[in-house]
Amino acid sequence: MDMEKVNSMDFSEFVDVFGNIVEKCPLIAAAVWSQRPFSDLEDLENHFFAFIDALPRSGQEGILRCHPDLAGRDLQQGTLTAESQREQSQAGLTSLDTRDRLRLQRLNAQYRERFGFPFVLVARLSNRATVLRELDRRLHCQPESELRTALGEVKKISHLRLTDLLGAHSATVEPQRGWGSERQQDASGRGDPAPQAGWGLERQSIHPHKGSGELKQSHE
Amino acid sequence: MDMEKVNSMDFSEFVDVFGNIVEKCPLIAAAVWSQRPFSDLEDLENHFFAFIDALPRSGQEGILRCHPDLAGRDLQQGTLTAESQREQSQAGLTSLDTRDRLRLQRLNAQYRERFGFPFVLVARLSNRATVLRELDRRLHCQPESELRTALGEVKKISHLRLTDLLGAHSATVEPQRGWGSERQQDASGRGDPAPQAGWGLERQSIHPHKGSGELKQSHE
Repeated sequence: MDMEKVNSMDFSEFVDVFGNIVEKCPLIAAAVWSQRPFSDLEDLENHFFAFIDALPRSGQEGILRCHPDLAGRDLQQGTLTAESQREQSQAGLTSLDTRDRLRLQRLNAQYRERFGFPFVLVARLSNRATVLRELDRRLHCQPESELRTALGEVKKISHLRLTDLLGAHSATVEPQRGWGSERQQDASGRGDPAPQAGWGLERQSIHPHKGSGELKQSHE
Repeated sequence: MDMEKVNSMDFSEFVDVFGNIVEKCPLIAAAVWSQRPFSDLEDLENHFFAFIDALPRSGQEGILRCHPDLAGRDLQQGTLTAESQREQSQAGLTSLDTRDRLRLQRLNAQYRERFGFPFVLVARLSNRATVLRELDRRLHCQPESELRTALGEVKKISHLRLTDLLGAHSATVEPQRGWGSERQQDASGRGDPAPQAGWGLERQSIHPHKGSGELKQSHE
């Protein structure tokens, strides 16, 4: 799909296509349509990010609360969105053994209790081990910084979903040098090679008004 | 359901129950949860309205764009939300003859083209004739005032959906005196008695911070 096609969409079609770029928040896509035409994926994405950034704190927390738990109730009941189902499956969360599933449920519950929103992370850049480790780590962060971290994850998820739809080479998430010794120490020598590529991305802040090009280029 | 029950809900349960108070905008319910505890239906409703009012214009238009056309594609395809299905059915829009359905489609398309959002109206307080008449009338309004009118309809729909859930006597929409000679002239002597009760409501502005009690009491 190219931008000419995107810019020609009426709002119904636009919301049909982009309504789940931010999980269960078609309102955001429907608002972003007002800003057309879009020059490229980065421009389109920046409008999504700007909308998120402009919300009051309750609205930002609201976005997070529209996300499912990882390996949680919606996965068990088959009520995940198609995008979430695919992403959780890519992380191996659809085939956890009972021990890991129960551990994840317990940590998810602690996280929700502490922060008032669910643990959100780019599942497809993770696996069982990194999800558990990252959840355990973030559970101990301060609420203010954790809100920022979680919204950063929402933006990365949005970025990848947009890339899926628009197939933009500019938006590819590539393995990054400088991924960081801190995480490799955490990983206790285990490889987790595919997920590691993504954590590099997680460790940068996303600048909504600079766009995805920066995601790709930094640390290179 | 009483407010004690509402105030005891975790955010997942709250979003499950109130996620479609504003059509397809669970983000709003999820944000409103931050404001608990709520003293009564009016208090709860006012938080929904305040969130809508605080959005930038694109966000307000976005809310409208999450609504289906009346007797439109979603109704034909069976993809309406349960609430919309019930409301459109109550207005008789699920059993239109071909002539009326085509006329409504044509007017809906003109409206969407003119305003950039779909025609939104409290369907359950309307019927075939009043929907067509009101659509024809609002099609000629100025964009600024039409946006306000449409958001007023969203609030009335929210109010009625909350009333359905909470069964609050304080929120009953009753037939109102002073319904207005202007509309009776428009109606060319036809009765449309049930919908007329609702139109009285439409002609007042809803004051988000005064609440539903005022809806009931004014014009009495």
